[in-house]
Parts: sequence; structure tokens; C-alpha cells
Amino acid sequence: MADNLDSWLALALAMADASGVVARRYFRTPVAIDDKNDSSPVTVADRESEKIIRDMIARACPDHGVIGEEHGADRPGASHVWVVDPIDGTKSFITGRPLFGSLIALCRDGRPILGVIDCSAAGERWAGVAGRPTTHQYAGRKPAPVRTRPCPTLAPAAICATSPYMFEGTDTARFDALRRATKLVVFGSDCYGYGLCASGFVDLVVEASLKVYDYAALVPVLEGAGGTISDWQGRPLGLESDGRVLAAGDARCHAAALPLLAG
Amino acid sequence: MADNLDSWLALALAMADASGVVARRYFRTPVAIDDKNDSSPVTVADRESEKIIRDMIARACPDHGVIGEEHGADRPGASHVWVVDPIDGTKSFITGRPLFGSLIALCRDGRPILGVIDCSAAGERWAGVAGRPTTHQYAGRKPAPVRTRPCPTLAPAAICATSPYMFEGTDTARFDALRRATKLVVFGSDCYGYGLCASGFVDLVVEASLKVYDYAALVPVLEGAGGTISDWQGRPLGLESDGRVLAAGDARCHAAALPLLAG
Repeated sequence: MADNLDSWLALALAMADASGVVARRYFRTPVAIDDKNDSSPVTVADRESEKIIRDMIARACPDHGVIGEEHGADRPGASHVWVVDPIDGTKSFITGRPLFGSLIALCRDGRPILGVIDCSAAGERWAGVAGRPTTHQYAGRKPAPVRTRPCPTLAPAAICATSPYMFEGTDTARFDALRRATKLVVFGSDCYGYGLCASGFVDLVVEASLKVYDYAALVPVLEGAGGTISDWQGRPLGLESDGRVLAAGDARCHAAALPLLAG
Repeated sequence: MADNLDSWLALALAMADASGVVARRYFRTPVAIDDKNDSSPVTVADRESEKIIRDMIARACPDHGVIGEEHGADRPGASHVWVVDPIDGTKSFITGRPLFGSLIALCRDGRPILGVIDCSAAGERWAGVAGRPTTHQYAGRKPAPVRTRPCPTLAPAAICATSPYMFEGTDTARFDALRRATKLVVFGSDCYGYGLCASGFVDLVVEASLKVYDYAALVPVLEGAGGTISDWQGRPLGLESDGRVLAAGDARCHAAALPLLAG
């Protein structure tokens, strides 16, 4: 089957619309919070939203695979696999912070070729497609291309990360060495931080302990905005990565950060 | 002079309006960032916004004192002193995150009696006046009263804090002991976290290294929503506090957290 990026992007945006409706319906209401095996929280909003997304994929692309945070993997060996986190940043979601988002990616042969970061409560959406400029849409206005900003060295760099507790073992010291070489770090961003990097407001996003559904959608968004994204060894991110992510707006900043993280 | 809380509240809201106009004008534009003596960042938006606020105070209440983050103290010994942080969360502001806010407080004899948390980019405002219910206003709609939520023990509590790096010396271990006794911690909130606590979405906000203009406005907002706010020894916050803040939606949660922080 030939790639049909336009219709798949349209499908991804429709899935983001549907997911956003569910998320906003439950946002700041008293939803029950369950703890998963890894003790991360999950709500009915996550599960309901992912179910809608999976139904939409099954109808439109029945031969595609799906990997979702809440409902597992179907046909993960297919050439085209959708990778979905219905609510990235569940801790933000359940504490009323509008920086959570839906992450929707399409991988071809294990590599992300399409990604959407949809922050429905903030009214912001970033969409990336391999080989095309990444767009940012705010408050329902027309999507506009975004670019990362130059940042040739670490000294002036602003870092985003979700939490200092996402780093384990020697990763903690590596992150610490990197952040001490930069200007400032802001925590509590989840997927929103990658959108801010694509839009040229932060220079680095440095995270670990991510699952494929946390990072797959970020790759086309960052790359289409002129950024660089890899694991902490500089390897491209794919279905089998180890969960460490280094995103940079400027390839020179990425290159300067790598040695501190790679150990 | 008799207290005139209604007109002072109207003045505070007008100052928040004016400050929000300035903040939104500079938000996500390439503003120059200076480093202050304490190496915290400041922009033209902070300075311009505070100047407008001080002019409004001087015109309306020439005998009141003013303490501002950027332009220092005028008449700090007056019976009524306004305490102003034009942009709390400057790191959020300069990285494009909409969670920064203007903090405007009025202290009488050293104790905050009126406070406004105005998060202009998020379109949310909390206003508290001693002895009255705290209100929350979203996207310009009518202000509505908010209440904190019950949380009788630490185990189910959600904590907000701006950064783990705001704790120094033994404060780091104390914060760590507290957060390990709770359910989850979300960083990167600045003043927005206190609004979330007033609205019943988080249970504790635990911070340190704050200046008076960072915490004065929070007191009437938290107390008017049914919450409890003090320093880490349980003492009321005033002009002379040490910069450690413990806010809780439920007094029982506050009482449970205190021994872990007080050492």
C-alpha cells in the first residue's frame, strides 16, 4: 500500500479532536484515579479516549497496527503502526493543569513519520509529517508553520523536563551535569515542552523512563520544525528505543548535550 | 482611615487587568532577558508591568506603601502596604508556558488582607479578601466562589511546587520526606499551583526561597477558599516571613505535613 500521508494526517487530527472532547469533558471534574502496575495514574478519560481513537483507526486503516498506553498492542508487527497516548501528562490532568495532551503517531517500519501533540485544555496543537514543516495551531485558528530557535551552545539554553524523578540510577547525575551547564530548567511540561521546543521557546527537552507512546509523536513534530531528537546515545527514536529522549531546537546544542548524557 | 475593601479589590483587579495586557503583549515574543543579582531572570515585561501598577497605587492610595519585585519599596512602614510581583514565574514566562501570573496583595499592619493571582495567559484569576469567599474567574466569565477539597491525610495528597531546586540545605531532605509520604508531586507551577489548591485540584503546595511578593497574595486566596497557609513552622505569613510556605486545602493535611517540614 502506498503511503497516504494527507489522509492519515486528516485521520490523526480527527482523532485528536475526538480525544480532546473526551479530555475536556473530564478535566477538572472529580474523576476516579486508578493506579496501574507501574503506579502511574490512569482515569476513565484515558481509557475512553483511547477506545475512540482505536475504533477510528480500525475503521479507517484495518490493516494498520496500534500500540496504545491503556489498551495494549494490536498487530504491532504491521508495516504501519499507530502509537497513541490518549492523555500524556495524567498527573497534570488530574491536578487541573492544562498542559496535558494527546499524543498520536504513525510509524512506518518502526520509525515515526507523522505525529500530533494536541493540548486540548491549552487550545494548542502541533502537527508534524516527515518531510514537511511542522505546524502549530492555537485556539482553533489556522495552523501556522513553526521553527525552532538557534542556540549554538549549552550556556544560554533553557531545558524542559517533566520531573527530576524520571531519572534513575546514573541518569540522575547525567541530567544534573547537563542542567548545570545550561541557563535554566523548567519542570512539569510533559509533551507540552516538546511543542515549546518546536516553536522556539525552549532549547532542550531531556527526559527518561518514557514509553514509545510518550515519544513517538514527538519525532516528526521536532524534526519538521528544524530540531533534532534522539535517545541519549544519539540514535534515532523508534518502536524499540530505551525511553531516554534528548530533543534540541538546534543541532549544535544537541551535539553539545550528548556527551554529558551518553556517559 | 477605615478599610475600604471593595474599592481596594476593584483597584487590585484593575491593576491585574493592566498587568495582564503588558504580559500578554510580550509573552512568546523575543524579549531580552537580564539576570538579576540573585541570577533570577527579569524582562522588560516585569519592569513595565510593575511601573503601571505602582502608578495606579500612587494615584488611588498615595498614603499606602508599595513593595515590588522589580522597583523596590516605597513607604514599607505604612499601615497599608501593597505587595506586587508583576510576573511570578518569569522562567515559565520566558519559555512560553502560560502558567505565570501577576501577584497583587494588600497588607494591613503586616498581614495580607487582599490577594489576586492573575494568570493572564491561562485566562484564570483567583481573588481573595479577608473574611470573604475566594473567587475564580475563567476566560472573562463571571467570578465564582471556589473551595478547597477535603484531604484528611498525607497518603492521597497531590503536591505542587515550582522546582526541587528551590529547597536549600536541610530543606531538601524535609521536602523529600514529605513528598514520599504523599501520592504525587507536580513541579513547575509557580503561583498557579496555589490557585489549583484553592480550587480543590491539589492538596498541598510546598515551597521555599520565596520573597514576600511571591507569597503575600496567596494568603487571602487560600484562606478564603477554606485552606490553611503558613510558614514551615506553622506561623502566619507576613511581611517578615522566611520564605518557606506550606499551603493546604485541608487543615488536617496541613497539620500532618508540618512535623515533616518543621524538623
